[in-house]
Amino acid sequence: MAEGRKVIGWAARDSSGHLSPHSFNLRKTGEEDVVFKVLYSGVDHTDLHVVRGEIHSPNYPLVPGHEVVGEVVELGKEVKKFKVGDIVGVGCIIWSCGECLSCKSKMEQYCHERILTYNAIDKDGRITQGGFSSAMVVNQRFVVRIPDKLAPEQAAPLLCAGVTAYSPLKQFYLSNKALKAGILGLGGVGHLGVIIAKAMGHHVTVISSSDKKREEALEHLGADAFLVSSNADEMEKAANSLDYILDTVPAGHPLDSYLSLLKVDGKVIIVGAAPTPLQFIASDLITGKRNICGSFVGSIEDTQEILEFWAEKGLTSMIEIVKIDYVNEAFKRMERNDVRYRFVLDVAGSNHG
Amino acid sequence: MAEGRKVIGWAARDSSGHLSPHSFNLRKTGEEDVVFKVLYSGVDHTDLHVVRGEIHSPNYPLVPGHEVVGEVVELGKEVKKFKVGDIVGVGCIIWSCGECLSCKSKMEQYCHERILTYNAIDKDGRITQGGFSSAMVVNQRFVVRIPDKLAPEQAAPLLCAGVTAYSPLKQFYLSNKALKAGILGLGGVGHLGVIIAKAMGHHVTVISSSDKKREEALEHLGADAFLVSSNADEMEKAANSLDYILDTVPAGHPLDSYLSLLKVDGKVIIVGAAPTPLQFIASDLITGKRNICGSFVGSIEDTQEILEFWAEKGLTSMIEIVKIDYVNEAFKRMERNDVRYRFVLDVAGSNHG
Repeated sequence: MAEGRKVIGWAARDSSGHLSPHSFNLRKTGEEDVVFKVLYSGVDHTDLHVVRGEIHSPNYPLVPGHEVVGEVVELGKEVKKFKVGDIVGVGCIIWSCGECLSCKSKMEQYCHERILTYNAIDKDGRITQGGFSSAMVVNQRFVVRIPDKLAPEQAAPLLCAGVTAYSPLKQFYLSNKALKAGILGLGGVGHLGVIIAKAMGHHVTVISSSDKKREEALEHLGADAFLVSSNADEMEKAANSLDYILDTVPAGHPLDSYLSLLKVDGKVIIVGAAPTPLQFIASDLITGKRNICGSFVGSIEDTQEILEFWAEKGLTSMIEIVKIDYVNEAFKRMERNDVRYRFVLDVAGSNHG
Repeated sequence: MAEGRKVIGWAARDSSGHLSPHSFNLRKTGEEDVVFKVLYSGVDHTDLHVVRGEIHSPNYPLVPGHEVVGEVVELGKEVKKFKVGDIVGVGCIIWSCGECLSCKSKMEQYCHERILTYNAIDKDGRITQGGFSSAMVVNQRFVVRIPDKLAPEQAAPLLCAGVTAYSPLKQFYLSNKALKAGILGLGGVGHLGVIIAKAMGHHVTVISSSDKKREEALEHLGADAFLVSSNADEMEKAANSLDYILDTVPAGHPLDSYLSLLKVDGKVIIVGAAPTPLQFIASDLITGKRNICGSFVGSIEDTQEILEFWAEKGLTSMIEIVKIDYVNEAFKRMERNDVRYRFVLDVAGSNHG
């Protein structure tokens, strides 16, 4: 197998999920490939679960990272849309067939042959390795352009968390109605959901199981209202009031009480994959013509759009920038929800050890 | 309270649900009212459950029936769109506010002030009584016209079961794609769902828990395919193949295996209100951009449309016509699923005892 440049990634070697430096070679640069030096890499809960083998079977050594911002250093000879020095991004997938209905409908994230950015088998048989690495090589179809106006570290969380919120919400963007949104869960995706829904002009209610995040939601993220789901009176008053709820909670939770918040024809959009089954009462759906739908990250087009939307509206996500050798500590803090709201690794500014 | 004409209905007196003749007075005919002699009345599972107090609190004596076809015998002075002798129909609701968003969007079945055809409190404080009765009086807004080409007994099951299947399916009617439909459950609603989906030009697969209804589905109802949900091989082969599934099963059932049958962006439409919670796995929804939605009967406009659709396409539902004094036996047979597929009471041709 022809080898390309040598890189240093931070890899897990076993189900402890502990990351440490790992030297490997990228593939030889193909005609359609973009090679970039990694500048920043967002850290997602999925990274933690995958390196520990809690979601899919892990292929060790395994370098995670699927919110990757970099600077182009080399281009395959067929690549016309980028030039060396461009700031680019890569999200959750690095390949799809290009032929199926999903691909032809610009929803390639649903292609059954899609290849995930890491821990997947690439076309050449290698295991894909993610963005916690000094450089990456990715086919140009799966590389987006970071707008000039957008700081590269700000772009990182948009490449998975941001587009996960944006993709299902863009259907509402051009609505001429004064839409009322609910955001359930205030983590990486949820906090971006609040910012995006506000920037789309929606009235935003953050729904939480306790009162703890009230100030955060209202004062810092600019939500319009805060609803405590365990408060039956508040929930009763809010019944039939929301057009949609973006449900970002990746753990089991009963949907009944949230469904009752929806207007006729309202939608609960599920983007957090709870490992245990979710439940609802059929009559809550039937008598209110309500919908429960799922959405998986977003397309490459959606990803480009959220970057431009973010730059154009001058939005700011809340991130904590750390060096790459802090990543194991970052994982520990994420486990106790001790992050507002996303760690971003300063990969280019780190000593790779 | 001003009394109108005396009628004889068949009423339940207690939670045995046994029906027997009951004499009562209709309200005095209002300006917007249509009074009609009942010709035929379809018998629905809901009737059985309501008269026994298994769904809502019953108000005895209680006359069920919400698939009612009749002949106009008297009109309020403001009623212009009907004349004496017209054949008309009434379905599940007999009033809505006319002012809310649902009413203004012609989805008055979702109006929070809607009044159901029987066992509800009418505007004048009376308990509404249904179509197992010699005559009814209903506001003209909730009365539909039975097309001349349609036999009145054929119209009866369309007024609830038929429109329940038609209303959520009409969104697909004008699709220019060759849609693939699944129908889950072959009862009153399901068998009409097969006929309607076929008449819309869809490829129809009947999904059943056993092989028992294969011949019925393929030979008698004209379905294109039959899928046994307990057959893992067949289910695996059918994965990702359907655009929608009309789920008419009014009992608890896991949705996971049915969700996997859907293409990207496919919908499970739930119209049968299972009393126990329904379950699904979030990732089945997320990774396939799938939807679970509910639909409650249909609007008055939908009801008029399905009647015209039925007449225009020359369709035939499978009904068993019986006299009204057979109704208690009909209930018993429905409980053991011993009906293909709907009992219709020949009310006008019956001796009311």
